[in-house]
Amino acid sequence: MSTKQKVLLLGATGATGSSILDGLLDANQFDVEVLVRPSSVKKPSVQQIKSRGIPLRVSDLNVSEKELASTLQGIDILISAIGPHDLLQQKTLVRAAKSAGIKRFVPCAFITIAPPQGTMLLRDEKEIIYNEIKSLELPYTVVDVGFWHQISFPCLPSGRVDYAALVPNTTIHGDGNAPNILTDIRDIGRFVARIIADDRTLNKYVYTWGDILTENEILEIVEELSGEKVERQYETIEEIEKKMEDTQSSLSLDPADPAKRILVYVTQYIYSKYVRQDNQPRYAKYLGYLDARELYPDFKPISFREFFTEVLDGRGKRPYGH
Amino acid sequence: MSTKQKVLLLGATGATGSSILDGLLDANQFDVEVLVRPSSVKKPSVQQIKSRGIPLRVSDLNVSEKELASTLQGIDILISAIGPHDLLQQKTLVRAAKSAGIKRFVPCAFITIAPPQGTMLLRDEKEIIYNEIKSLELPYTVVDVGFWHQISFPCLPSGRVDYAALVPNTTIHGDGNAPNILTDIRDIGRFVARIIADDRTLNKYVYTWGDILTENEILEIVEELSGEKVERQYETIEEIEKKMEDTQSSLSLDPADPAKRILVYVTQYIYSKYVRQDNQPRYAKYLGYLDARELYPDFKPISFREFFTEVLDGRGKRPYGH
Repeated sequence: MSTKQKVLLLGATGATGSSILDGLLDANQFDVEVLVRPSSVKKPSVQQIKSRGIPLRVSDLNVSEKELASTLQGIDILISAIGPHDLLQQKTLVRAAKSAGIKRFVPCAFITIAPPQGTMLLRDEKEIIYNEIKSLELPYTVVDVGFWHQISFPCLPSGRVDYAALVPNTTIHGDGNAPNILTDIRDIGRFVARIIADDRTLNKYVYTWGDILTENEILEIVEELSGEKVERQYETIEEIEKKMEDTQSSLSLDPADPAKRILVYVTQYIYSKYVRQDNQPRYAKYLGYLDARELYPDFKPISFREFFTEVLDGRGKRPYGH
Repeated sequence: MSTKQKVLLLGATGATGSSILDGLLDANQFDVEVLVRPSSVKKPSVQQIKSRGIPLRVSDLNVSEKELASTLQGIDILISAIGPHDLLQQKTLVRAAKSAGIKRFVPCAFITIAPPQGTMLLRDEKEIIYNEIKSLELPYTVVDVGFWHQISFPCLPSGRVDYAALVPNTTIHGDGNAPNILTDIRDIGRFVARIIADDRTLNKYVYTWGDILTENEILEIVEELSGEKVERQYETIEEIEKKMEDTQSSLSLDPADPAKRILVYVTQYIYSKYVRQDNQPRYAKYLGYLDARELYPDFKPISFREFFTEVLDGRGKRPYGH
């Protein structure tokens, strides 16, 4: 009989979730299953997971706590990489995890370092879930990853890296000197596999990183590797603040509009990263986070330099592209 | 010129604040000043502090951040023992502390261990302040003390300890087996003096304790020391829950009524301590608290047994009695 820890992953087809799925499988030390909604079972991305021999557990999240708990039976570790619009749907899942005796719940964090409340709507909703977890004394680990390499590079005049860019741009925010925690999206799962097997991270916050870089430093690397000169476009602090306020007031007129929400998320990320300069190790440490690189000194993350070399070689991949 | 840390204490005339004031002065390693509102300067309790040679700084809290920051000039450590109804008045104080370069802010915590959100209204308001602190990256220490010895003893049939009881009663909640963190109110200041001089507690939560006792254990000590038999009155979990709900709905009809708020605080304390059983070391550790007794193994706190011996000897003092 297997003595491997049984891990159930929610959101396995998403950008973060598929990295986690790969990381868990590659670690070869977990029995991995995937939680999917009934309406998603037939999706090609889910069928592809099934075809890799990964067992599916099928349940909606808006069922009773009791029903959800029965779906979680036998699971040791529950990881949620649920989408940003569905964060609050984790509420019942948290209670079900408690009653099913889950030994570690990894709620959907996986973002930048930011204040627990009042700066980023996305972070605020996560905090509601963390507080629910803490209220139930459910064992947990919060894993934040900063921003991805994959959405942190400027485009080149030649256009040769546009194929891998989510939104091609060459904007520098403020003076371009705010350091930011960056993780290659492919490393998220590898980090998670380490973190969930580690007693030191139980009931703790952990951040991962491949590099800590400012926009100016990123530009230097990009220009050096490409041999091209990037034309800088500057956005001032005032312009960032104005954009953020505009998106926020637009959302307040229509709070249920997902497109308007996404715009708020995007502008609040920029405000937090470049105006407040939250997403850096000093603030993470202040907030009580453990540093995954200190925990795992042998871990070799993908550096931004390595990542961008791949992009120049045509081996990049646009995020959310599946 | 003095190289002592300059400490400013807000709420020095309250029950917790006066313990802190005594603890700071006894430690003989701080320059202590007291922050008072203009309307309080003439109060006998404030004049008494002044007569001990302690400098007063006088300011309202509802002034501008700039004005408040100028009042805080030269202060290293700011401790708030503000009253439970005024917790949210700390908002401007937090911002002023940041701009005045305060090296450590000790916000008004000093209660039982409880979930950060959703269980106790009193705790929820403190959380708002903690989040404000974290958003500003203001150096801080949260100190919680559990419940006081002084409000944790049952009365005796002879009536001889009633003089020291806040509300004489002999109620046992549930089965009386919930362990609770207890600190003698006089030890709070002694603990605080240690904690604020300790780099290990910076940006951390710490809990203090003299004893960890259940109500049944308290009764055993009380009966042994007094030679009297206490008549137990039991309150069931259901009765506790009913009382809490009643006080909450009563407050919701009249949210500004301080008497109704106090009743909610009292019943939520009871619910948290005896039904949820939050106020114990295991949960404190889960929430990330440091244990002050582990930090200071040489610290000799006043045990509940010592405290109750004093009460029997007529040397007790009713809390909030000044």
